[in-house]
Amino acid sequence: MSKVIMGCAAVSIDGFIANDSDGIGPLFDWATNGDVEWTWSGEPEEYPMRSTRTSFEFVRSVYPRIGCVVMGRRTFDLTDGWDGVPAAGEHVFVVTHEPPTDWKHAESAPFTFVTDGVESAIKQARAFAGDDRVVDLAAGQIGGQALRLGLVDQVVMNVVPVVFGSGRPFFGAMGAGDVVPFDNPARVVQGDRVTHLLYDVSRPPA
Amino acid sequence: MSKVIMGCAAVSIDGFIANDSDGIGPLFDWATNGDVEWTWSGEPEEYPMRSTRTSFEFVRSVYPRIGCVVMGRRTFDLTDGWDGVPAAGEHVFVVTHEPPTDWKHAESAPFTFVTDGVESAIKQARAFAGDDRVVDLAAGQIGGQALRLGLVDQVVMNVVPVVFGSGRPFFGAMGAGDVVPFDNPARVVQGDRVTHLLYDVSRPPA
Repeated sequence: MSKVIMGCAAVSIDGFIANDSDGIGPLFDWATNGDVEWTWSGEPEEYPMRSTRTSFEFVRSVYPRIGCVVMGRRTFDLTDGWDGVPAAGEHVFVVTHEPPTDWKHAESAPFTFVTDGVESAIKQARAFAGDDRVVDLAAGQIGGQALRLGLVDQVVMNVVPVVFGSGRPFFGAMGAGDVVPFDNPARVVQGDRVTHLLYDVSRPPA
Repeated sequence: MSKVIMGCAAVSIDGFIANDSDGIGPLFDWATNGDVEWTWSGEPEEYPMRSTRTSFEFVRSVYPRIGCVVMGRRTFDLTDGWDGVPAAGEHVFVVTHEPPTDWKHAESAPFTFVTDGVESAIKQARAFAGDDRVVDLAAGQIGGQALRLGLVDQVVMNVVPVVFGSGRPFFGAMGAGDVVPFDNPARVVQGDRVTHLLYDVSRPPA
């Protein structure tokens, strides 16, 4: 079965993936301060990332081939569903209680709105991705829920040297009973304005 | 003037230095899973740390010589003021609104209760430490306040691969307006059950 990797572009050293207004401030600096051009999808795009070779090589090695994305409704709304074009992979599964009724790309976009929870979304995503591609699971509320449910294989944290103070937590609204131990990081790579960490998560047997 | 280093023994990857009940769970594993015995103070103690050589050498290089400690009232109360013996350095400055009236070590212990705020405590601590020793500033509420006030030179994070979900935040109760940019980490050292990160903080000119 395909691997589920929880992550996002960047996280502050105090654990936030955006501020309270969903702003990213300096979190994406590492994705614009280098001279290697690349995209998450691997396809040419209007606004490619530009990072150091070190960061580029880390990302490519962690996500060799993304089959599809699982995200929550907030990310969908903030990006207007990437205008119907997956920023990575070939399909997007959006976990939401109520699918949008007026999304203009609804007919044509390879998006599935999953109303019966994150476990169902990840099951569908893994089936779609197949054995040789990974599932890119968005950090935040949905990622945190999946982590608590034991549905995550790896966690990638691109840690940016800035304190945000408050904002949207990388692990979502975890609670006091949600202690999750990880293995030692499988990779620790220092880039420019980012420290890349890759963790394996011990997953309960299926 | 002496350098002010904000840190603590360990922080979870979601930014907590203890859980809601001040428990540390697996946060201190790295300080007991090696075969090099050491103490923060450099003096023999009843319960020394036992870590890998890598972790020991990181700690020693970051804190070559601790002059004194600045901590908040919570840590003081939790440890009963280390029974009056500084765990590191030769003096402890405790920031508190109300000094304890019944502490049994009050007469003899090299502890100063500072009632006029963290800025005053750090000023006294730097004067005590002198030019050739550092001030060890406890992470948490007091550390976060000092960071916001521009009183911190370096931040050390010993990041443990565990998600806590909730607890006492490393940076204290920071708010949305408290964005603090750090330099790239000056050191990134992988130990066993810990990733050591050392950040320089750009400090406004005195």
